Amino acid sequence: MNFAILFGGMSYEHEISIVSAIALKKVLHSTPIFIFCDAQREFYLIPAEKMRAKLFSSGAYRKETKLELKQGGFYRRVLMKEKPVHFDVLINLIHGGDGEDGKMASLLTFFSIPFIGPRLEASVLSFNKLFTKWYAASCGVEVLEYEVLHRGSYDVKTPYPYIVKPLRLGSSIGVSIVREEKERDYALDVAYEFDDAVLIEPFIEGVKEYNLAGCKADDFIFSIIEEPQKEQFLDFEKKYLDFSRTDRVQEASVDTALQKALHEAFKRIYEPLFAGALIRCDFFVIDDRIYLNEINPIPGSYANYLFEDFNAVISALAKHLPKEAKIPVEYHYIHSIQQAKGK
Amino acid sequence: MNFAILFGGMSYEHEISIVSAIALKKVLHSTPIFIFCDAQREFYLIPAEKMRAKLFSSGAYRKETKLELKQGGFYRRVLMKEKPVHFDVLINLIHGGDGEDGKMASLLTFFSIPFIGPRLEASVLSFNKLFTKWYAASCGVEVLEYEVLHRGSYDVKTPYPYIVKPLRLGSSIGVSIVREEKERDYALDVAYEFDDAVLIEPFIEGVKEYNLAGCKADDFIFSIIEEPQKEQFLDFEKKYLDFSRTDRVQEASVDTALQKALHEAFKRIYEPLFAGALIRCDFFVIDDRIYLNEINPIPGSYANYLFEDFNAVISALAKHLPKEAKIPVEYHYIHSIQQAKGK
Repeated sequence: MNFAILFGGMSYEHEISIVSAIALKKVLHSTPIFIFCDAQREFYLIPAEKMRAKLFSSGAYRKETKLELKQGGFYRRVLMKEKPVHFDVLINLIHGGDGEDGKMASLLTFFSIPFIGPRLEASVLSFNKLFTKWYAASCGVEVLEYEVLHRGSYDVKTPYPYIVKPLRLGSSIGVSIVREEKERDYALDVAYEFDDAVLIEPFIEGVKEYNLAGCKADDFIFSIIEEPQKEQFLDFEKKYLDFSRTDRVQEASVDTALQKALHEAFKRIYEPLFAGALIRCDFFVIDDRIYLNEINPIPGSYANYLFEDFNAVISALAKHLPKEAKIPVEYHYIHSIQQAKGK
Repeated sequence: MNFAILFGGMSYEHEISIVSAIALKKVLHSTPIFIFCDAQREFYLIPAEKMRAKLFSSGAYRKETKLELKQGGFYRRVLMKEKPVHFDVLINLIHGGDGEDGKMASLLTFFSIPFIGPRLEASVLSFNKLFTKWYAASCGVEVLEYEVLHRGSYDVKTPYPYIVKPLRLGSSIGVSIVREEKERDYALDVAYEFDDAVLIEPFIEGVKEYNLAGCKADDFIFSIIEEPQKEQFLDFEKKYLDFSRTDRVQEASVDTALQKALHEAFKRIYEPLFAGALIRCDFFVIDDRIYLNEINPIPGSYANYLFEDFNAVISALAKHLPKEAKIPVEYHYIHSIQQAKGK
């Protein structure tokens, strides 16, 4: 199986997508093709041996081969001819905007490129945290209470402490905890920097959090369950660690009943909407009840560190991608009309 | 204002998009550029004088200039050079799949092409009838009760008579009314031909239906309110009439209170999700209460026949398109990490 990794994008998570791609290079058994989407949304073919963060931050990537996305694949122009870049399956590794919001799913589907990643509807429902609430409810998975405010509004009804999140970003960008009134306006202004709307949820001190990744190939493949430890790092270090991880993490100590319940909640969320994707669901457990916190449809470095044999998982998933139903276009109506008109 | 009209697409409504484009040519004051997306999703520049249904049904369009969609526009290749196709604003007139499902919104946004039509989230929420139910509820607009069944299930709970619709198609394709048990399985099988899931709603004989189109430029611009008369035509004639209409229709006789209430419901649905689009909302009125039936985010021939001066409406909308927020990519994290590492 020859993989291509698509990374970058016009996204607040552009940089961590680069870090994520470098991490994935280390864990795949065969060297993938690297396709970079820059902030101007031009595509470049990056030789694997040049995959270092500095190539991108310095702008030196612009000297590499430019690619065009067309029907059937990515092409480079050699003299008068177009040559396709060869791979079997592309891994969409653009985090945040462009990658997780549905644009890349649309482009890849439209141009008939087989890919691992969330499809269009799955992207839109998981990228917008309000839509995720609606979706989880329809799956019978509980979520925390919430309210949505729009730019210009500071009229929060949720009691302190609460958490403020931009409605559409992934990662922890623009997220604040508000413990008292004097922190409110600043927290909202920070979130409004990133989105016209914000989601507000109660903040529960010391809540139990469990992350579970997985996908469906022949059957469901689950990762270990991780209890994230987030508080001891500076912001950029935390992010770097989250997205560059390739070492396996400590498995959370959860009893069989909880493990089963988390698997069950994951399945309800995953099927059928997320077919073709490897996702990570972040859950809260409060008084023995499971709540969906969020869905990461393209987790940092594909959460490779949560799997025993990541290469085997991604290869199995690559063989179980949903096929787009091709629609026959037959000009039946136009023929009927022309016959009716006697033409 | 120079318009381009994008039509066709891999869609069950491919043909009626052609009919729709021909209709729109008649009502715009200046001749637009025509860009055809064929069933293989290749783009062609079609000279306005050749815009006849037969050019497409015969396959003769393949002799026209092929276009490539790239950053900043559609390009044709002349010898070794690429020349952009010039227009100010593109009108997305691809009905159904590709056009209304969010793929075209994604492509046009990604490649920075100004366009009239629903944006990505608006497309996905209006294309999937289940998502539309969730969305309408969140806007405080009532909808009929419903249930969703997935392929293989015939276990309908809704009492007879009911209406069966493929979950994701626009138009009336695959829709049946079921009045008794013996009609059930066939109706479901027909709908499952078009989608893996179907929506079922009570069918209310003789329900009052009102269609209202509109958009927001400086302020809201509403069409007249139409009471659709649908039953007297054969299937293909009905469709042809719906999509080729350029003559104004009879205004429904509604009192001021109902007109105001319909305008109010339209505004709740439209704003802010549908900014940049001219949509038609189809409402039911039952016991003086308004219910949203469906949202047509790209109505046939843009519902030109419902407006006094369609050219003025579309030109005003073209000046009020939402701008995509450009995200600055600054390599802040990568620089911080490199500094921390002493590189």
